[in-house]
Amino acid sequence: MNSNNCDIIIAGSGFAGLSAAIEAAEGGASVVVLEKMKAAGGNSVISDGGMAVAGSELQKKHGVEDSPELFYQDMMTAGLGLNHPALVKKLTDQSAEAYRWLVEDIKVDFMDRVDLFGGHSVPRSHGAVKVTGASIINPMKKKLESLGVSIRYGHNLKRLILKDGRVTGAVVSQDYSYKTGEGSSEYELQASQGVILAGGGYGADVPFRSAQDPRLDESIGTTNKPFAKADLIKEALRIGAAPVQLSHIQLGPWASPDESGFGDGPLFADYTGFIYGIIVDPESGERFINEQADRKVVSDAILGKGKPCLCISDSAAVNYTGWDIGKALRKGVVKTFHTLEALCAEYGVPQDPLQASIDDFNQLVQGKKKDGYGRILPRDAMNLGTAPYYAMRLWPKVHFTMGGLHIDKEARVLDLNGQVIPGLFAAGEITGGVHGASRLGSCAVTSCVVFGRTAGKQALNGTN
Amino acid sequence: MNSNNCDIIIAGSGFAGLSAAIEAAEGGASVVVLEKMKAAGGNSVISDGGMAVAGSELQKKHGVEDSPELFYQDMMTAGLGLNHPALVKKLTDQSAEAYRWLVEDIKVDFMDRVDLFGGHSVPRSHGAVKVTGASIINPMKKKLESLGVSIRYGHNLKRLILKDGRVTGAVVSQDYSYKTGEGSSEYELQASQGVILAGGGYGADVPFRSAQDPRLDESIGTTNKPFAKADLIKEALRIGAAPVQLSHIQLGPWASPDESGFGDGPLFADYTGFIYGIIVDPESGERFINEQADRKVVSDAILGKGKPCLCISDSAAVNYTGWDIGKALRKGVVKTFHTLEALCAEYGVPQDPLQASIDDFNQLVQGKKKDGYGRILPRDAMNLGTAPYYAMRLWPKVHFTMGGLHIDKEARVLDLNGQVIPGLFAAGEITGGVHGASRLGSCAVTSCVVFGRTAGKQALNGTN
Repeated sequence: MNSNNCDIIIAGSGFAGLSAAIEAAEGGASVVVLEKMKAAGGNSVISDGGMAVAGSELQKKHGVEDSPELFYQDMMTAGLGLNHPALVKKLTDQSAEAYRWLVEDIKVDFMDRVDLFGGHSVPRSHGAVKVTGASIINPMKKKLESLGVSIRYGHNLKRLILKDGRVTGAVVSQDYSYKTGEGSSEYELQASQGVILAGGGYGADVPFRSAQDPRLDESIGTTNKPFAKADLIKEALRIGAAPVQLSHIQLGPWASPDESGFGDGPLFADYTGFIYGIIVDPESGERFINEQADRKVVSDAILGKGKPCLCISDSAAVNYTGWDIGKALRKGVVKTFHTLEALCAEYGVPQDPLQASIDDFNQLVQGKKKDGYGRILPRDAMNLGTAPYYAMRLWPKVHFTMGGLHIDKEARVLDLNGQVIPGLFAAGEITGGVHGASRLGSCAVTSCVVFGRTAGKQALNGTN
Repeated sequence: MNSNNCDIIIAGSGFAGLSAAIEAAEGGASVVVLEKMKAAGGNSVISDGGMAVAGSELQKKHGVEDSPELFYQDMMTAGLGLNHPALVKKLTDQSAEAYRWLVEDIKVDFMDRVDLFGGHSVPRSHGAVKVTGASIINPMKKKLESLGVSIRYGHNLKRLILKDGRVTGAVVSQDYSYKTGEGSSEYELQASQGVILAGGGYGADVPFRSAQDPRLDESIGTTNKPFAKADLIKEALRIGAAPVQLSHIQLGPWASPDESGFGDGPLFADYTGFIYGIIVDPESGERFINEQADRKVVSDAILGKGKPCLCISDSAAVNYTGWDIGKALRKGVVKTFHTLEALCAEYGVPQDPLQASIDDFNQLVQGKKKDGYGRILPRDAMNLGTAPYYAMRLWPKVHFTMGGLHIDKEARVLDLNGQVIPGLFAAGEITGGVHGASRLGSCAVTSCVVFGRTAGKQALNGTN
């Protein structure tokens, strides 16, 4: 029998929900975390666990000069100016503190490296060990347990309870199945301080996402878990929350059509191929895009080709970056070729133009020319040409939903008139406005931690 | 004393509302048209009254080959594929019939010409006489009067009434003032067949539009009337209607910072300057954009310059197109210069580069080179260089809101689960999905007439 009273309800147990729960519990609140699935972490746990941070000790150690201001500019540029400035400012101002909190308070292990992701001006992505969000979720769970908070698995926030315009609790269904959308029974849970929505995005919700972007019907895959639905967003809209930029939905350009879900190919493409290698049209053997452009630009370019394109790198780069791409190789998502000829034979690429594209790229590496596509190479760029070669087919998948609930910088949910809905908070992918038209890689973890913590503290101090 | 019973309530008396009202009244329904302002026509009456039609007799007369399929492709291209295909198909399939209806049944006078607007592949814009939407609204009002329907002015639909999930009427405030958002008294109006929302867009609603696109704060003007607010959209969302693509808001690139509202400059810029003239950066004297690209592309390019740019044409073009730009000249929004030197002196443009830009453009006109910006000139393009010159400063204004309520092709409003909300219909700018990311010029009238008529008929047949 679960208690039906608490101070704060948190719906969702990904990065945002657990960050909120830890802050609220540390502040002394009685917290109930609802997780509709049977395990914690939602989509966070299958992410790669990379976190964009400006001004960390780790960056300094690796000789990277960065600042919140530069980070802000990068996010606004990628977002095409649609980002809500106050949210971006908060995220970029607090990224270094959020990272320190993860390292020092939550005991997350990060790798001793910082990576340059597309659209970022400098190496800024701090990867949790084993390149998985589980390396962040697990210590968060441990911390939460030490604070005496348990997660109610299979419990779904079905309906928000309002009293005199204030959110005071929720109707929860138990033994929830996301396939049927139903649970076995329901109970009411009162929350004296408020409800925090941290249920993630709607990347797997085909009817909802395709109403906003009709291109994204069932023919387009997703890197998300199948339970990434819009239910909590709809429930918040039902009680008057304002939607923001719902039609901005991000495709991951580093996804493979040769595996389902997020898969194992992206580790190769995003962490090695796009940085040290090239993308070519298999029909012409030619490059057609700045491989380091942001996700929207690269995805739109590949979709525009109307067919999967090829990401090509070589053993020098794969050995240098050091990522373990064994799984992708065993699945056949990334393939090895001892000669360029063999690679061309496999994919039907004309060899001479491909060789010319590679020669051209190597001229860039050697600083002998500028790139027609605007690519700026990292300081440690290297020639492409050391056999064996590695190649992967690319076809975008729905990866992240930039739109969501309208919040202010205190993570309070706003209504259609821009007024705070008392007792209702939100953080993470369920919110809109942080990333604008396009999210930069590794900014989601930062958003979840910064605004999750904010929501936890804000609900705690009860001024809303 | 107004009757408090009718078959169909229509909120809004622009192109969409009046089209719906005429169809419903012709079908025998008792219709009440609510207009919150003191006069009919909303923003429609201040539009230029241009209607995009594919396959009209007028096009054939002027030797233009066109088809619904080509029109469909043009709209999808401009909309970046975000358009809802079924809505675009309906609009493009029925544009010719809608135009015939206006000419034959409503007795609208159109000019004997078809114009090429940016983003359209062929001349397709059919302009009502005097280049004003009033030339369509007035005969529509006359038709409505002949059907015995009067418009309730100053009556605002404040709240929708639901009974068992069906919209059955509305709470109406009388003597409404859009400035206070209040009326003097309220009454309930029952509608046995349904309510049609045709209240237009939210271009003048700064808080609402800037939540969706934070760039569009009070520093950006609008071509809309100040009453173009989101109130009806919010009311529909309150009862569960789904929003679609609210963050897609169109700026008019042909607007002038030297007058308020839509003004008189656009007639010069859009109908002469962008077709036969050029746009230059006043600092460099150089072109920087395909002047015939769609509104989004041109607006973003001008905004990207961070300062007003110049539209330049000459007397050969102005005389040829024949538009009466006297009002813009008297206001000083468009200026005349007897020499290029004088023009340059006025705006601080370096003369040699401007002369080079003009010479370059004339090479295009003469077919001696291709345009680096992708501009394709009309068959009747002419050299730029016949004094006097005409110039106008350009700075985009919010012109149209592509987003709005989710409807199906029968103009029925859908909820967040894609289900029809019984008794609720919508048409025109209040709806989303027709134009996707960017509306092409003169497609709004078509959308209003096609979906307004559809809503009227659909509410009439009562199958919803």
